[in-house]
Amino acid sequence: MVEMNGKKLRDELLIGLREKIDKLDKQLGLAVIQVGNDEASNVYVRQKEKMANELGYKFIHKIFKDNVEQETLLKYIKKLNKDETIDGILVQMPLPKHLDSSIIQNTIDSYKDVDGLTFINAGRLVQGMPALVPCTPKGIVDLLDKYKIKIEGSQVVVIGRSVLVGKPIANLLTNRNASVTICHSKTRNIEIYTKNADIVIVAVGKAKYLKKETIKPGTVIIDVGINRVNGKLHGDVDYDNVSELASYITPVPGGVGPMTVYELMHNVYTAHYLRSKYVKNKK
Amino acid sequence: MVEMNGKKLRDELLIGLREKIDKLDKQLGLAVIQVGNDEASNVYVRQKEKMANELGYKFIHKIFKDNVEQETLLKYIKKLNKDETIDGILVQMPLPKHLDSSIIQNTIDSYKDVDGLTFINAGRLVQGMPALVPCTPKGIVDLLDKYKIKIEGSQVVVIGRSVLVGKPIANLLTNRNASVTICHSKTRNIEIYTKNADIVIVAVGKAKYLKKETIKPGTVIIDVGINRVNGKLHGDVDYDNVSELASYITPVPGGVGPMTVYELMHNVYTAHYLRSKYVKNKK
Repeated sequence: MVEMNGKKLRDELLIGLREKIDKLDKQLGLAVIQVGNDEASNVYVRQKEKMANELGYKFIHKIFKDNVEQETLLKYIKKLNKDETIDGILVQMPLPKHLDSSIIQNTIDSYKDVDGLTFINAGRLVQGMPALVPCTPKGIVDLLDKYKIKIEGSQVVVIGRSVLVGKPIANLLTNRNASVTICHSKTRNIEIYTKNADIVIVAVGKAKYLKKETIKPGTVIIDVGINRVNGKLHGDVDYDNVSELASYITPVPGGVGPMTVYELMHNVYTAHYLRSKYVKNKK
Repeated sequence: MVEMNGKKLRDELLIGLREKIDKLDKQLGLAVIQVGNDEASNVYVRQKEKMANELGYKFIHKIFKDNVEQETLLKYIKKLNKDETIDGILVQMPLPKHLDSSIIQNTIDSYKDVDGLTFINAGRLVQGMPALVPCTPKGIVDLLDKYKIKIEGSQVVVIGRSVLVGKPIANLLTNRNASVTICHSKTRNIEIYTKNADIVIVAVGKAKYLKKETIKPGTVIIDVGINRVNGKLHGDVDYDNVSELASYITPVPGGVGPMTVYELMHNVYTAHYLRSKYVKNKK
């Protein structure tokens, strides 16, 4: 069994990203919009800020109060859309209930949408066109590639159908010629799928959900879960148990997690690249 | 074995559609843009025109020459986007090689995109939001519903991953709580999937591709193929052979095909509805 090391891969990939941004004639810029003072959000934004600073990105962290009006947010996003020093914009989720996250998300210029959550980027991905793709799915693909796990022709089971993970990873891997099944809470006999899978990707948000009884020996296991139980972090996979059978497995923490912030930084670069290529030249 | 009758269902559903459009205070309008004089395209456009006329829609059939410049097409689409008498716009595929179908498609206002091919509608569908959905997948869902075939919790295999059929039907059925696998030319051991499926949807464009040896008794078979072999129409399913085992099956012709033009007419209504609800009120 090989443990897939997300921290190590992130550090390796950061070297390549640094080389790419060193060649640019401008500083890249990322703006993170946060509403309220959620403690988990604070942690995530700090991680982003730290890596952005390490890479020399301009970093804007704009905090609005819990009761901010939607129009105020939209106006601020539109200002950032026009700001040539900003290449990537993201709105930290979750948002308070009075805000429509879909409208807010889709106000972001699709060429600055570094979370890949606008309809346009989701549509571009499903149609196999160049797109800004959500960070966690991109991190998973980079991990699979790093460990030379064959994607083309492989049988993949994705458990969970979220807009941020399940659906985009299914699309990415279908575009890479895998045969992908999306399973979820309404799936009957999930083990029919998982027992035949070459790769199982679990993103359900339930600690120790996947057990070894539901997989075959030699399966590649990707664990997207981050569940806090009694102050300890657990993935969606029962690691000690499943790792007996897996050929490759991502640990939690240290697997998919570290890749996600890196992919965000890379998306800022990609956003700049795509915008230079497809938008600026057309003006 | 029950043969699923697309013609009969289309005629039934047309009654309901007529009732809905009779209640509107305006005439609906559909514009079809055709480039060149492809004989198959001529047939398809005539089918659309016929049904549009029957429903009392305004119908514009604009034909450009084979060598039309892309800018001319885009300009015409933009004019239609602004035309309040036009609710739906579609560009008949395929287009000559010098034209970029993705750019042309995405110039159509997403609220008039009755083929459901813009990135925005593809993204809205994958994210489970109200969308204009491609016509053939919608026709398949209506057929399944008509024959009371359970979608939630069912195991669905979609063979083919086109932007027009395979991917959108997978998304529609995932959103309806089915567990969907997309298979394609790179899938190994496709019978592992099809032998376990409750519903198999075939959209590969190969006459008599699906044989009874690859399915289990009682499977619901949806045949999207329209293949002309020696002047005769064949589906992607080897009908005589597979129908021995299927519980329900769509014939070719007379199954999915007749539904598609109906769904286009219904999409014109839906486009009008969504635009009234989400766009006009905001002006």
